[in-house]
Amino acid sequence: MKAISGRLERQIQFLIEIDKTKQVFRKTKLFDKFRFENAAEHAWHLGLMAMVLGEYANEKIDLAKVIKMVLIHDIVEIDAGDTIVYDTKSRTEAQEKESLAAERIFSILPENQKKTFIALWKEFEERKSPEAKFAAAIDRFEPILQNRLTDYYTWKAHGISYAQLQVRNKHIQDGSKVIWEVVQEIFSEAKEKGEIKDE
Amino acid sequence: MKAISGRLERQIQFLIEIDKTKQVFRKTKLFDKFRFENAAEHAWHLGLMAMVLGEYANEKIDLAKVIKMVLIHDIVEIDAGDTIVYDTKSRTEAQEKESLAAERIFSILPENQKKTFIALWKEFEERKSPEAKFAAAIDRFEPILQNRLTDYYTWKAHGISYAQLQVRNKHIQDGSKVIWEVVQEIFSEAKEKGEIKDE
Repeated sequence: MKAISGRLERQIQFLIEIDKTKQVFRKTKLFDKFRFENAAEHAWHLGLMAMVLGEYANEKIDLAKVIKMVLIHDIVEIDAGDTIVYDTKSRTEAQEKESLAAERIFSILPENQKKTFIALWKEFEERKSPEAKFAAAIDRFEPILQNRLTDYYTWKAHGISYAQLQVRNKHIQDGSKVIWEVVQEIFSEAKEKGEIKDE
Repeated sequence: MKAISGRLERQIQFLIEIDKTKQVFRKTKLFDKFRFENAAEHAWHLGLMAMVLGEYANEKIDLAKVIKMVLIHDIVEIDAGDTIVYDTKSRTEAQEKESLAAERIFSILPENQKKTFIALWKEFEERKSPEAKFAAAIDRFEPILQNRLTDYYTWKAHGISYAQLQVRNKHIQDGSKVIWEVVQEIFSEAKEKGEIKDE
């Protein structure tokens, strides 16, 4: 396109590239059990979760920052793919791939925006700021709610135990004690129903 | 769930209800032409467009407000469905259905959040504030870019002419003159290639 600046050209190229996020399928199903969720839909849902549940963050948060963070957090999966959080080995390998992916994909943007996006993505990954802790809490809450509503599809398909659920999700309480209470109830219910292994 | 308040129960019910946005399919295809886009993915992409292209808004905008606006703008399509903007009669009928849908769906939320969401959705629909004008511009730009990258799939399938494109998208210039220039180039190219009717 001739009438546009190099800067705008790069921005549009980035917006075209990230369309691929819609083709990254996750391990959890939509609430109606119809099909697997993709990473773009997941990010959208987290944006809404931030808007609706933001009041339950443990610490004061900049809500706009949380929303931006969750909207971009899974773009790296275009290159790195989606890995289940309960597979610790795959997660470690995935983290390296995700760093390379962030560098490649966010470099399509003009330099100043690249810096902003990489910083935001790293902040999410490091899970230290109040915003990142809350973003991580809702990032875990969405698939837990999906499992609750799809007869625990992913947990059963991958043989996830009650103990694994506790260990891999315990950081939810760093972001929101209220959400952690709801999650505890979902886990206990699954255990009592005999739907997940109690070990 | 017993441990949670009535307020939180309603918030979770809302977050479950809006999962249906992922089942509302639009008239445009993803950039790889693989399948139609759904309304949740579309909203996510607009959130990213706001973050990346916000600097091209004609007026000073509150970017966080634009992002929230685009994230919620198509939730009403759960009840009202997606209608193509070029079908003027269907769009008028759809507007009534969308108002009812907004009332039903946002009423699942606690009263104060219902008010906030309805106000934000109405502001988007009325297209008067700087934020709403810019949100409307990117809401049109995304499908135009999709058409550009999918051999003008929707425009050809629905027999959309160059004149119709101009009329139904002219409000893009109220939100962003820069995006309007890009769009003009896409329209002209389609006309010159003989891909759309020139009338």
